[in-house]
Amino acid sequence: MQIAVVLYDRFTMLDAVGPYEVLSRLPGAELTFAAAQPGAVRADTGRGALVADAALAELPAPDVVVVPGGPGQTALMDDEPLLSWLRAADAASTWTTSVCTGSLLLAAAGLLAGRRATTHWLALEQLAAFGAEPTAERVVVDGKHVTAAGVSAGIDMALALVDRIAGEQVAQAIQLGIEYDPQPPFAAGSPRSAPPETVAALRAASRFVLEG
Amino acid sequence: MQIAVVLYDRFTMLDAVGPYEVLSRLPGAELTFAAAQPGAVRADTGRGALVADAALAELPAPDVVVVPGGPGQTALMDDEPLLSWLRAADAASTWTTSVCTGSLLLAAAGLLAGRRATTHWLALEQLAAFGAEPTAERVVVDGKHVTAAGVSAGIDMALALVDRIAGEQVAQAIQLGIEYDPQPPFAAGSPRSAPPETVAALRAASRFVLEG
Repeated sequence: MQIAVVLYDRFTMLDAVGPYEVLSRLPGAELTFAAAQPGAVRADTGRGALVADAALAELPAPDVVVVPGGPGQTALMDDEPLLSWLRAADAASTWTTSVCTGSLLLAAAGLLAGRRATTHWLALEQLAAFGAEPTAERVVVDGKHVTAAGVSAGIDMALALVDRIAGEQVAQAIQLGIEYDPQPPFAAGSPRSAPPETVAALRAASRFVLEG
Repeated sequence: MQIAVVLYDRFTMLDAVGPYEVLSRLPGAELTFAAAQPGAVRADTGRGALVADAALAELPAPDVVVVPGGPGQTALMDDEPLLSWLRAADAASTWTTSVCTGSLLLAAAGLLAGRRATTHWLALEQLAAFGAEPTAERVVVDGKHVTAAGVSAGIDMALALVDRIAGEQVAQAIQLGIEYDPQPPFAAGSPRSAPPETVAALRAASRFVLEG
């Protein structure tokens, strides 16, 4: 089973590495980080880079596609080479998935029209402009299209995917292998649970970023 | 505040990237992935590589040290250049931290003697050989030494660290920014909650690996 994790300049690293850590442990999986060109791809913070071992063109028809999010997504919303690759890959894939604002790239490629989908909570309403149905859940499965909420949600998404691909026992073994027994120090990980002033501050900062 | 995340051949990528994603968002933080030599460092699965932007020798005294785990840790338990760097860095650090079997490297450097510490559940008892007190908790804080359990526990550890460094409001904002509202599909992330046959299977596989 071939799995392609798409990298691009200014992606968010945990969006890509959460699913990688789960899916690379799937028996028979051959996971590849791929980008427009092979080589180091710098993350959004500027403080880290992941290596793309292949060009997207070398992987025209992976069984599973994973598209992470990140601030760099904005500049790619009309990037025809990437959108064409996504359309062709989706036509052949068993599962087409995203984390965070990666779903906006799937949406821009026309792959989420009429489907329930999610993304980072700050970007959720943007999905509607592409005919998708914004759905405030952590992992949204609509047929073979699986979208996850912000950043860390890719771990939950990938485990749910392993459950569907290889069954509960394999998913549980991988979950135990990565000791995924989360104990967040605060109930602050969702706009529904975080202190309202924290939610408001992030909304304001995000508006500032979006409006330059 | 200078933060060094130590990379080495066959590290586990999420061990490093979980704390990176949290700590790089700390206001004023300057996080650097560092290894014996700068350049791409291949992870344990062979399917991914992270770029070390600096040599460890270029960062002799970071404020925060983060040591991830992974199968490559075994080969470094008597690597004098790394152990010397860890000792010198620890002598100057504000916080010395680890994820997963990264704590065994801290222990091998003599930094955990007489301290409570944790690691991946499969390796917990190994800490005792270095005079540390194996502690089956997700995040263990003993003075300035903070150790996390396996792989995904680095996210919880880093958020706990941000709370101590910059306070609850900053930690909550980062948690909300990475939408860390985990919803694991199973209660299988710990040997205390996973099905006993899954725990036994991973123990057996691990013994096979350790005994070659």
